[in-house]
Amino acid sequence: MTDAYRAAGVDIDAAARAVDSYRQAVGPERDERVLQGIGGFAGCFALRGYRDAVLVASCDGVGTKVLIAAQLGRYESIGKDLVHHCINDVLCSNAEALFFLDYLAMGKLTPALATEIVKGVAHACRQNGVALLGGETAEMPDVYAETGFDLAGTLVGAVERDELVDVSQVGAGDLVIGLPSNGLHTNGYSLARAMLPVSEWGDALPGAAHPMTVGDALLAVHPCYAPCIRAMQASGARIKSMAHITGGGIFENLPRALPDHLAARLQLDRLTVPPIVQLVATAAHLHRQESYRVLNMGVGFCCVLAPQDAQRGLEAARQACERDPIEAVGGGRAEIIGEIEPRHPCGPSVIID
Amino acid sequence: MTDAYRAAGVDIDAAARAVDSYRQAVGPERDERVLQGIGGFAGCFALRGYRDAVLVASCDGVGTKVLIAAQLGRYESIGKDLVHHCINDVLCSNAEALFFLDYLAMGKLTPALATEIVKGVAHACRQNGVALLGGETAEMPDVYAETGFDLAGTLVGAVERDELVDVSQVGAGDLVIGLPSNGLHTNGYSLARAMLPVSEWGDALPGAAHPMTVGDALLAVHPCYAPCIRAMQASGARIKSMAHITGGGIFENLPRALPDHLAARLQLDRLTVPPIVQLVATAAHLHRQESYRVLNMGVGFCCVLAPQDAQRGLEAARQACERDPIEAVGGGRAEIIGEIEPRHPCGPSVIID
Repeated sequence: MTDAYRAAGVDIDAAARAVDSYRQAVGPERDERVLQGIGGFAGCFALRGYRDAVLVASCDGVGTKVLIAAQLGRYESIGKDLVHHCINDVLCSNAEALFFLDYLAMGKLTPALATEIVKGVAHACRQNGVALLGGETAEMPDVYAETGFDLAGTLVGAVERDELVDVSQVGAGDLVIGLPSNGLHTNGYSLARAMLPVSEWGDALPGAAHPMTVGDALLAVHPCYAPCIRAMQASGARIKSMAHITGGGIFENLPRALPDHLAARLQLDRLTVPPIVQLVATAAHLHRQESYRVLNMGVGFCCVLAPQDAQRGLEAARQACERDPIEAVGGGRAEIIGEIEPRHPCGPSVIID
Repeated sequence: MTDAYRAAGVDIDAAARAVDSYRQAVGPERDERVLQGIGGFAGCFALRGYRDAVLVASCDGVGTKVLIAAQLGRYESIGKDLVHHCINDVLCSNAEALFFLDYLAMGKLTPALATEIVKGVAHACRQNGVALLGGETAEMPDVYAETGFDLAGTLVGAVERDELVDVSQVGAGDLVIGLPSNGLHTNGYSLARAMLPVSEWGDALPGAAHPMTVGDALLAVHPCYAPCIRAMQASGARIKSMAHITGGGIFENLPRALPDHLAARLQLDRLTVPPIVQLVATAAHLHRQESYRVLNMGVGFCCVLAPQDAQRGLEAARQACERDPIEAVGGGRAEIIGEIEPRHPCGPSVIID
């Protein structure tokens, strides 16, 4: 059956096998909130315990980090990258991550490889209390090379309406805490690939705290900042707004956490730039200002707090980072990196001193 | 700024321009449920009016229909395909579609082209009362050819827990209503491309009710069955379960709407097969049984109803199709296509007489 279709590059049987092995990868654990999981037309998730729920959703990919994974033949970590990236995005609204759906498209559907990727997705979901509710695996000859693929996903979370982040609460004099990045996260990989020849990926990474190769550092998993943020909040520090530093760097992302009439003045020199980020910035001869737009330069996530909350928040963040070391791959520690001030009319929202 | 990055094939400025033009494509209409739309880290949607909400989510792509769109230089319809496909998926759980997020990845980000695609997404969302809550546009040189791209998305809907479809309600003697397809929908395009040379896409489609080219028929928009299903329910007919006929055809999709101990015995000869579907089936020399697994063969969506509800449901479906003609591109009309019977142990779930 379906020989003609297989000759055209699509194997329906392989698709069915992949879904079976996803079920195994996701594991037998029962999540009582999931009424219909992988394999139905749609996933069904019981929303309970909210008075006045706001649903918060983020859709993302991992960029050309997929090419690094393919080159190194290590597929599990990009699934984690993707889930963490999306959790961080909904975290910026103060939402709890509820469920995730992944989209995996390949030139030729290889169930073993697809399962490796979905395993990483499932692992990151499980670790963060997120239900893997469904997804799509597509075999698309001619869109992707035979060994090519892309990975994207959508995470849905929820927050009580009166606990939703409201950037208008941010005021002049508030402080910005930067949480450390541990590498490129999911951004800057096209530049990294252009600057660092594959032949050097097996080399030792210069400046690394622990011995590792350039390839290891390129694949370092994008951290999930939710445990750190929840620890800060549990300490009693009220976080007014948050920014996930992704494509566009701190210049494009921090302004989303600020009202229009305010700007952030940052001192970033005290931050540790992860060695792999420094390697790319140096190889690309990026100007200092430019590097902050193209790469995360050591800041993976920002929080804005009132001055009286900042010290308590900072200590809680550092303790959380030590328990669950973000810097395992060479990042720094949480720091107060700047202050909010009135924005000059027509001036920039982010000023780096 | 970002010259090095641009040389590596990524244009951050183009990404920012694309987001601006999405906002325009989505339009100025205010949807009061949307508290944070396109441009934030995550979209925020106020869920109101549910007693005991179950969230229902589907993630999908449009397969290699993207290559047809690229070949013909017509990009708006695939956005509609995608949204309709996802609405139909959550409809199978009886859920109301609430919001959508799209993932668009391109080899080279061309804001004008990206905007055409997102316009189609936005149009289909607006027409169906769905909020376009966010999305991701990724520029991924080397994953996609410079002019290559992929499109996927996730739709989230909701339904009261006690109105969720429960396939265990289906019993022997229930009837299956088939709703007409109008073409390949979003399935079978790799086969179609292998069988129908591009040089023939400008030819008149044989057997078409209205003059159209093969290319027109290949790009026919995947219909949204929600208006039809809602009309059937409004007529008083209770729909026990539903199946969206997509990849794997009626053989793989109808069983998802049945309990394990039951099978559907179908008579499909009374159905009109859309001319483009027939053209592909003939060109590929598909055996009859095989064709029902690879293509939709005229059935886009199935509903299972008790016999006493079937006639009323059928009439409502036909009236809805006439108001909003699914068959505009050559499909047939709704028909009772079969009956539910006990499944033979180890026998198939779908039997085509």
